[in-house]
Amino acid sequence: MSFRPLDAASLAEAREKRRVVDETYYGRDYLRLKDAVHGAPRGSAVFGERVVYGYPQIGRVLRLDSGLAEQFAAPVWAEEKVDGYNVRVFKLGGELIALSRGGFICPFTTDRAPDFIDLTIFDDHPDLVLCGEMAGPGNPNMEGYPPYIEEDARLLVFDMMHMDHPGFLPQNERMALAERYGLEQPEIFGRFELDQVPELREILLTINEDGREGIVFKEDSARAKRAKYVTSFTSISDIRLTAQNMLDLPPEYFTNRVLRLVLFMDEEGLVRDDELHQQLGEAFLTGLFDSVRQFREEKRVYHRYVCRFHDKENAERLIERLKATAKRSQVRIRRQSLERREDGYWELVFDKDFLRITGAFGHLMGGGLVYD
Amino acid sequence: MSFRPLDAASLAEAREKRRVVDETYYGRDYLRLKDAVHGAPRGSAVFGERVVYGYPQIGRVLRLDSGLAEQFAAPVWAEEKVDGYNVRVFKLGGELIALSRGGFICPFTTDRAPDFIDLTIFDDHPDLVLCGEMAGPGNPNMEGYPPYIEEDARLLVFDMMHMDHPGFLPQNERMALAERYGLEQPEIFGRFELDQVPELREILLTINEDGREGIVFKEDSARAKRAKYVTSFTSISDIRLTAQNMLDLPPEYFTNRVLRLVLFMDEEGLVRDDELHQQLGEAFLTGLFDSVRQFREEKRVYHRYVCRFHDKENAERLIERLKATAKRSQVRIRRQSLERREDGYWELVFDKDFLRITGAFGHLMGGGLVYD
Repeated sequence: MSFRPLDAASLAEAREKRRVVDETYYGRDYLRLKDAVHGAPRGSAVFGERVVYGYPQIGRVLRLDSGLAEQFAAPVWAEEKVDGYNVRVFKLGGELIALSRGGFICPFTTDRAPDFIDLTIFDDHPDLVLCGEMAGPGNPNMEGYPPYIEEDARLLVFDMMHMDHPGFLPQNERMALAERYGLEQPEIFGRFELDQVPELREILLTINEDGREGIVFKEDSARAKRAKYVTSFTSISDIRLTAQNMLDLPPEYFTNRVLRLVLFMDEEGLVRDDELHQQLGEAFLTGLFDSVRQFREEKRVYHRYVCRFHDKENAERLIERLKATAKRSQVRIRRQSLERREDGYWELVFDKDFLRITGAFGHLMGGGLVYD
Repeated sequence: MSFRPLDAASLAEAREKRRVVDETYYGRDYLRLKDAVHGAPRGSAVFGERVVYGYPQIGRVLRLDSGLAEQFAAPVWAEEKVDGYNVRVFKLGGELIALSRGGFICPFTTDRAPDFIDLTIFDDHPDLVLCGEMAGPGNPNMEGYPPYIEEDARLLVFDMMHMDHPGFLPQNERMALAERYGLEQPEIFGRFELDQVPELREILLTINEDGREGIVFKEDSARAKRAKYVTSFTSISDIRLTAQNMLDLPPEYFTNRVLRLVLFMDEEGLVRDDELHQQLGEAFLTGLFDSVRQFREEKRVYHRYVCRFHDKENAERLIERLKATAKRSQVRIRRQSLERREDGYWELVFDKDFLRITGAFGHLMGGGLVYD
């Protein structure tokens, strides 16, 4: 990663070009990078004098053998890639804040982070930024989640940064800190030479059977280059989870996953048999048949989310944020309810209505014409 | 269909806007409508004073019951929809010409039409334009074809027009002419009242089992409105045939077909079982695995076409045309050979290389990164 630190002049210029936008949230003004600026990633956020750099995009390899050889120049750490959403957690002026990948404040993670993080880590390391994955069935953004998080959600920390400094802490430092403060991390499979492909294949076959997402490789070097590689399980599971709102995603979402599946199977020497065919076909059809049924019964296609909060206000902020960004992504947030659970949490239930597929079903089932 | 006849003034205006372009082919100058002009469809062609109107786009319904009720106001003729490509055949200055849907002269159909058409029809009806489907494994454009055309190709006539006159001949006139001159037509299932949905369903289930494409409905009225409806067999078969070059087609090609499949199954009351899942999964994977194998062995992904011609020059013209249009569609025409068969035909063999998927495999199998 080659950043150039963000300074006042480059921020002012980027603001004029609308690459940097003003945000107000939780009564707090900050600047959010809508796009990369001088190498600082999209999603970087500037709070007064303090910069929380964005989490850089990680490229994907679709082949393990050639991918490792081509992308890396030194041994790599291999860690589990977790199916959730990327957040950065830090403390500023005594207040805990969690940012989403895009640089928005995430009310869910901001609310729930203390459940997963020993906050004394920020007393001892006030500039620390924890990068992690918020994952589980009770998260407000994603339909997929790892098999070992059976309820609610958890935060798994896979990287650390310092405020105002682009770049990550070295692997050993991060692992030591995580251990000291008892932070949960994605499984770390170890440090591998680039020719240890057979060992990595074994791991991939195992996590594929477990229904886990894949591996992130992190070069054990100053540049800390990263690349990701996912299992065929994930390719099929992604399709199954999102076929329900097929028309609301870019169609290459689906074709890319079929392609990944084929390249994974081919490289891992997995046999293309009737069971696999059946799994893939079922993945495409299950969700869509559910949508048809939903539409018949309720005249809308939606997914229901259920999430827990400590603070009622955070739940309300989440709904506000979801509604504000919904139009862009052709969804509508409906039917929300907020109730106190016996264990003290506030339980937020809301439906995300998928407008494109709802509209298409209305048109098509009503006998409308399409020209294609 | 509401056309306004093309006149010199509107053509001149459209030419300035590049909606009409000059073409020279077979030593012949003509104008081709790249887009619709005053209601005259894309693909219309103007040879001096004579206009051959384009074949209008036919909208698709994804539901039979509501589709018929919504789209039509009078009984409909139901005819088989044939899996091939649309051509218009006519005679001009003593010469037989076949145009593709887009208004290009089709050297294959121009060459082979006399095999399928009793040309005396043009002596008796010099202004007649035959609209039909060129279909079969030996066609130079399409990978799919109907199950009952086992070799070479055939021309099935499903509509007739008169030169200079937009609009089709009435169904009975067309059927009578076809019978008189022994022209092959797609199967005509009959004339149906709009509430005869159960009868139409029966037909659809049968042709679905036969592996045929679907039905075109033609309103038995002056406006002759049309709509098409395809079987689930076709949706799966389209995917199977084109998964090989998945990245060279718009990705919605695939998602639309999954959607059609689901709506067909749902409406026809077909059971979503393991066999169907298997068929769909297999459709997606077979072609892609073949591509991977092709790429490994030959460093390219391609489909091979074999077509017969009477006239060597027509084969050469086809290759010329394919090469001219290849760049636009990211294909390359390679390895052609042209040899005389024992039965006197010239056999043209050529490979259509799919450049996007070939390039993607090169990048990905070489360990390249993708950001998605």
